[in-house]
Amino acid sequence: MTQQPDSIRVGVLGARGRMGLEVCKAVDAAGDLELVAMIDQGDELFKASDAGAQVFVDFTTPDVVMDNLRWAVDQGISMVVGTTGFTAERLEQVRGWLAAKPGVGVLIAPNFGLGAVLMMQFATRAARYFESVEVIEQHHPRKLDAPSGTSTHTAELIAQARAEAGLGPMPDATKEEVDGARGADIDGVRVHSVRASGLVAHQEVLFGSLGETLTIRHDSLDRVSFMPGVLLGVRKIRQRPGLTVGLDSFLD
Amino acid sequence: MTQQPDSIRVGVLGARGRMGLEVCKAVDAAGDLELVAMIDQGDELFKASDAGAQVFVDFTTPDVVMDNLRWAVDQGISMVVGTTGFTAERLEQVRGWLAAKPGVGVLIAPNFGLGAVLMMQFATRAARYFESVEVIEQHHPRKLDAPSGTSTHTAELIAQARAEAGLGPMPDATKEEVDGARGADIDGVRVHSVRASGLVAHQEVLFGSLGETLTIRHDSLDRVSFMPGVLLGVRKIRQRPGLTVGLDSFLD
Amino acid sequence: MTQQPDSIRVGVLGARGRMGLEVCKAVDAAGDLELVAMIDQGDELFKASDAGAQVFVDFTTPDVVMDNLRWAVDQGISMVVGTTGFTAERLEQVRGWLAAKPGVGVLIAPNFGLGAVLMMQFATRAARYFESVEVIEQHHPRKLDAPSGTSTHTAELIAQARAEAGLGPMPDATKEEVDGARGADIDGVRVHSVRASGLVAHQEVLFGSLGETLTIRHDSLDRVSFMPGVLLGVRKIRQRPGLTVGLDSFLD
Amino acid sequence: MTQQPDSIRVGVLGARGRMGLEVCKAVDAAGDLELVAMIDQGDELFKASDAGAQVFVDFTTPDVVMDNLRWAVDQGISMVVGTTGFTAERLEQVRGWLAAKPGVGVLIAPNFGLGAVLMMQFATRAARYFESVEVIEQHHPRKLDAPSGTSTHTAELIAQARAEAGLGPMPDATKEEVDGARGADIDGVRVHSVRASGLVAHQEVLFGSLGETLTIRHDSLDRVSFMPGVLLGVRKIRQRPGLTVGLDSFLD
Repeated sequence: MTQQPDSIRVGVLGARGRMGLEVCKAVDAAGDLELVAMIDQGDELFKASDAGAQVFVDFTTPDVVMDNLRWAVDQGISMVVGTTGFTAERLEQVRGWLAAKPGVGVLIAPNFGLGAVLMMQFATRAARYFESVEVIEQHHPRKLDAPSGTSTHTAELIAQARAEAGLGPMPDATKEEVDGARGADIDGVRVHSVRASGLVAHQEVLFGSLGETLTIRHDSLDRVSFMPGVLLGVRKIRQRPGLTVGLDSFLD
Repeated sequence: MTQQPDSIRVGVLGARGRMGLEVCKAVDAAGDLELVAMIDQGDELFKASDAGAQVFVDFTTPDVVMDNLRWAVDQGISMVVGTTGFTAERLEQVRGWLAAKPGVGVLIAPNFGLGAVLMMQFATRAARYFESVEVIEQHHPRKLDAPSGTSTHTAELIAQARAEAGLGPMPDATKEEVDGARGADIDGVRVHSVRASGLVAHQEVLFGSLGETLTIRHDSLDRVSFMPGVLLGVRKIRQRPGLTVGLDSFLD
Repeated sequence: MTQQPDSIRVGVLGARGRMGLEVCKAVDAAGDLELVAMIDQGDELFKASDAGAQVFVDFTTPDVVMDNLRWAVDQGISMVVGTTGFTAERLEQVRGWLAAKPGVGVLIAPNFGLGAVLMMQFATRAARYFESVEVIEQHHPRKLDAPSGTSTHTAELIAQARAEAGLGPMPDATKEEVDGARGADIDGVRVHSVRASGLVAHQEVLFGSLGETLTIRHDSLDRVSFMPGVLLGVRKIRQRPGLTVGLDSFLD
Repeated sequence: MTQQPDSIRVGVLGARGRMGLEVCKAVDAAGDLELVAMIDQGDELFKASDAGAQVFVDFTTPDVVMDNLRWAVDQGISMVVGTTGFTAERLEQVRGWLAAKPGVGVLIAPNFGLGAVLMMQFATRAARYFESVEVIEQHHPRKLDAPSGTSTHTAELIAQARAEAGLGPMPDATKEEVDGARGADIDGVRVHSVRASGLVAHQEVLFGSLGETLTIRHDSLDRVSFMPGVLLGVRKIRQRPGLTVGLDSFLD
């Protein structure tokens, strides 16, 4: 695709991984972005800076991502990071590096799915207006943890919003319960984990008050769904100096 | 409503209760049925037989229903019973009374909702064709038990159908679980109980195999939904001598 | 219920109507509100002001609501209005009356269901992030219009948000269509109207991009669901002088 | 996988096509089936019979499938056919060939998805018990026809079942309709076609009577979901001599 004169030059780190490859394709297909470097194990990072990369996208592994970040920040290259394994200590370290480079932005996001991010925003916002809320997440049966990370995070956000609005515990008259029927208790919010063949990754947040319910549901079928969120990050990161955690604040 | 000459004459026992009242209205509104007696506490049963009742509908209480049944069977009156509390012993006793009255039919059903009955039939039938199945039931927060009786019964029927088809345990790689996340285990079938204001009575059975899911969902909003099932029973009971348990076999 | 010393004194106009009666019950049950007057046809409005009403709630009819509004504004009484039939001319007239009474607030809202209002807010907000969106509304079969007013309004809001974000038409390769299959076209957004016994009032907004969908669904089963929205209006209206149309801006 | 001594020997025609390839993988992975020949353009059919094939699976094209069928029937090889384009004339011709070979079975099915087949069975069965029913199908936006073939067929089956049960038209008070809002009319059953990015192939059949609804929903995400149906056909076809159209009767 012919690039516009003011297109953003992008380097992809982890370019041969499953996510990295999708990012390369998505950058390549976007008229306002230019893919200038595909870096993976065995390649040197300076190839990317030599190619004039203005933004790096990093889908690598926890053991190399910190080196990548340090090097990019030093070079004044902004970065969009989907790699996992960021502890509070690591985030603090990145903030330290960025303090010395005021023009550089880094976005670290656990989830680039716009649908998932919006679901969490909407759930947080609706939480104060309803008496009851429960979360039902549904995944393929190869998943190791229950509940999912996203559903746990959603429940925590809801619990916090309810507390801020002064809402007490939800009504629940259950007296006789077969163990587990009422789901997991995450900060007072019940979360149910369904596992079945044929499912991919789905989540439903069900709010209820007398006479009405409001349901927010997200269905994710393919990792290609993360690309719009990654591209949104790439397009905006240079206007957001410093460290941003979570795609949330990039939506507005 | 003008009655047809061959209309069935119906007496309602427990006529002033919530369900009984609905039955009276439904019988009254049906062109092929005639409401000839409304009986409740303080009324004598012979008023109903004097009025020529051919079928009794009983929505009373466990402490009087056996007397009602005995008396009706003795009089040769068939009976449709929605009252709860029937043990194996009680059912055996009713069978004994009916043995002496070959022309009389009694239908005892825990659930007259056609939707619920069909949901259970379909779930039983689909069970053998899918790798995975889970049940999600959703009710108002005043409900005392979790899971609901209907969902427990559904899970038992599914477990039995899977066993008969030689299916083994479902795939489930869960390693880390917050207590309760994976729901209650009913004969190997996971059941999840959601409780929230704004809900009435809902149940979803989710079947899955590689690449597809099949979902059967029942939403019950009002006890008026039981009336088609009660009327179906009234219309057919005299052609079904002996004891029938469950509305199931009346549908076909 | 014992009233708090600083409770708001409320008069209900149209108190014997279906909605008015619910409002009376809801105000009566709220610890921070005091029901001081129930007015209906044949009652004089000054009974309500004599009783010290600070806020009126009006669920009357289009032919009397303007008189009620004029009188209340003159008396310095704020007003929460659910009565229908407001044209641009009527709204302008109310604004004129309020201009002379800077301390008085009037809220006129077509829908007091918080769930419906949040659904529309979320749909508007999500609209710019997805390639596709369609609306499916489901109602009881006694409804006269299709699509529903709420779904039409939702589609208009979505169309406007898409236009503002520079989104073009949605992908749709349909070549052969049985008339009506693709629904009604409301400003380029497809709306589907389902009508069936057993339904009450439901709406689903389905957003999709490659690999994911986001669904926002509202189920309204009972007019009691409008009460939290009415009470929210009553509690806030005296801090919102002038005319507010729609409950939307009261949520935040 | 080690084959059992009594495994069925299977030849796949159209083995290099998308469906054919999936069939080869599925047969290969099944312990009770043996993949003995993979035939595609340029290969001779006798290679498959030489290899001892007992059953052929055909996912080829309308222009070669009739030759394949004739040859297989002549050789006494049973056949499971997913190729499209069968007219009444073609079916009659196949029946003619089979008349001369009483031991051979042929199954021709437009849809091998067990979920879709069960959905249609259940919808047909539920049709007589509800006042209202509508069909909502949802597909990716590259689909050319609306409504889908499966939803049209479902609506026809429902219409027929309602007619047989003596049900009249459904209640619908719609007076004002924006063109298309109420969907397509297929034999009196309304069908709504949703098209959006992120969707694959989904269908919902919604039944309703006063106070309750019953929903049957099928979600198909991947052509791998057709394999259990194909294998079911392969396993049973030799016990079903003659022509069978539709997988339906193989389920029970």
